[in-house]
Amino acid sequence: MDKKTINIGLMGLGNVGAGTYKTLEMNFDSILANTGIDFKITKILVKDLEKQRDINVPKDLLTQNPDDLVSDPNIDIIAELLGGIEPATDYMLKAMQNGKHVVTANKAAVAANFEVLRNAAEQNKVMFRYEASVAGGIPILNALTTALQANQFEEVLGILNGTTNYILTQMTDFGLNYADVLRIAQEKGFAEADPTDDVEGFDAANKLSILISLVFGKRVKPDEIPTEGITKITKEDIERATQTGHKVKLIASAKLENGKLNYSVKPTLLPLTHPLAGVSNEFNAVFVKGNAVGELMFYGKGAGPLPTGSAVMGDIIEIGKAIAKGASYDIKVAGGSK
Amino acid sequence: MDKKTINIGLMGLGNVGAGTYKTLEMNFDSILANTGIDFKITKILVKDLEKQRDINVPKDLLTQNPDDLVSDPNIDIIAELLGGIEPATDYMLKAMQNGKHVVTANKAAVAANFEVLRNAAEQNKVMFRYEASVAGGIPILNALTTALQANQFEEVLGILNGTTNYILTQMTDFGLNYADVLRIAQEKGFAEADPTDDVEGFDAANKLSILISLVFGKRVKPDEIPTEGITKITKEDIERATQTGHKVKLIASAKLENGKLNYSVKPTLLPLTHPLAGVSNEFNAVFVKGNAVGELMFYGKGAGPLPTGSAVMGDIIEIGKAIAKGASYDIKVAGGSK
Repeated sequence: MDKKTINIGLMGLGNVGAGTYKTLEMNFDSILANTGIDFKITKILVKDLEKQRDINVPKDLLTQNPDDLVSDPNIDIIAELLGGIEPATDYMLKAMQNGKHVVTANKAAVAANFEVLRNAAEQNKVMFRYEASVAGGIPILNALTTALQANQFEEVLGILNGTTNYILTQMTDFGLNYADVLRIAQEKGFAEADPTDDVEGFDAANKLSILISLVFGKRVKPDEIPTEGITKITKEDIERATQTGHKVKLIASAKLENGKLNYSVKPTLLPLTHPLAGVSNEFNAVFVKGNAVGELMFYGKGAGPLPTGSAVMGDIIEIGKAIAKGASYDIKVAGGSK
Repeated sequence: MDKKTINIGLMGLGNVGAGTYKTLEMNFDSILANTGIDFKITKILVKDLEKQRDINVPKDLLTQNPDDLVSDPNIDIIAELLGGIEPATDYMLKAMQNGKHVVTANKAAVAANFEVLRNAAEQNKVMFRYEASVAGGIPILNALTTALQANQFEEVLGILNGTTNYILTQMTDFGLNYADVLRIAQEKGFAEADPTDDVEGFDAANKLSILISLVFGKRVKPDEIPTEGITKITKEDIERATQTGHKVKLIASAKLENGKLNYSVKPTLLPLTHPLAGVSNEFNAVFVKGNAVGELMFYGKGAGPLPTGSAVMGDIIEIGKAIAKGASYDIKVAGGSK
């Protein structure tokens, strides 16, 4: 209740870091009005101090030394937006050991080190949030762990990777080959120069691993998920699907069948009537089925600086409100899995 | 942290009350495992003590006296599931004055008395939640007030009434007249004997009023919303829409245009490509556009005992977790509207 300024250390000023910075900048007044909290980014970890960026960030916030963030006693929350398993995990753990709450958009690190990070947060009595790590701006993790927590879930199904969904949509709509669309996507910035992580399904497997942890309370590491990408999908495969009233989508799924949890990431034929069939281009969607709520679908932008910044800032604000209430960490009342 | 049992007083054992009771009953073990909290329904307000019901509720929980709930010092949370503006609002206010947290599914009472209820919760330092009052099981209010709160919103658009969406879908799919489908819907229990509230758009206007409060921080009472129902829609209107590639949907919308907030509930032609065009039968959906997150859509069951019970129990569990953490009320840190 006393603390009305919350200081944030931003690790990374790439797409997601810049999107987070911009989200706070453009909505600062409404966030302050709604929460009474003055959220301040006080330090930013970057690789290159001199790099030209398309956002206007005061030079004196920038540092190349991670200790300037994780050891700064004035920083309340670290937002880890570097990507990659290491050194990101190491930085997050150090921040937690120093009593800092941690928000991350890093699916690779969360999927690889889920228990380690969760346990460290609990031991250090800090909050740890990672909404942006799955489906970007779509608030699916928050919904699963709050409003939907009275359910037991039977199934989760998602289009969790915007790059592959863009490629499959363009192949379908314009009758193009995979290789041609990949090139266009790379030119437009929708696919990376090395697209392996996306097109081979590894990115979706990371996100599915995180979803499985929350939906089923089970730990399945990304490399334990049978994963097939879209690189072998041909124009002809898609034409055949269209002729029979189907769309080809890269589907990440986990389903309880006779008490056994089955999961995979693979190209899947969906009938046009399926709620996920209409999810096109860079959009993501997550479909869940709970034993009380029934079928639910969440649809939105799964990537991009501002949608991801929205999710990162949403987590930061939730932590800020909890700090202001004097309820700043997720007490695990008993031995639950969530 | 000490309190591991949370006692709930249920007001009403109709569709929503029974759905809430069943949701807790069937998922009690997983809720206990996930939260460490033993949620107990200790009293239930009913009109008729002897009525035969299709759920098995211990007789000694039932009472016809609201004071047995609102004045019981052992009850932590009142779940008001009676419907109607009064006496529901009166009961909620009394419960708050007695230090009880309140959860409701009652859109009419929340829309009519939004400030009164919010202010009473604040003054009495109790939590007040109403997720189930808009779009049933779809966790839209929670998302708006937590994960999406870093956004400023430009638009909210929803199919918020399952009865009218069912009628319009059946008219479209089977070429039927309004009156014929209404009769079928009444026989199937999808429409009430007096369907006025639904078919004239009043139910949707209540829900839109609540959405506007949260999305735009503005108070617009239901009777200030221009509202047109579906009773004048003919088979021919729908045939014409189909011929031009549109669907007729009862759309509740609010949009900021040049700084002015415009809002209405009315039958609307949506192109088939619109994300809301594919929302059929009793399903609801809410579409929002935020300045960071972009376009988001939430889709699911907007009514029914268990979907609504999922939302009510979600609110109850959130309050229970906050009580267990010793952070049991929504401190408004400053003069924000949320």
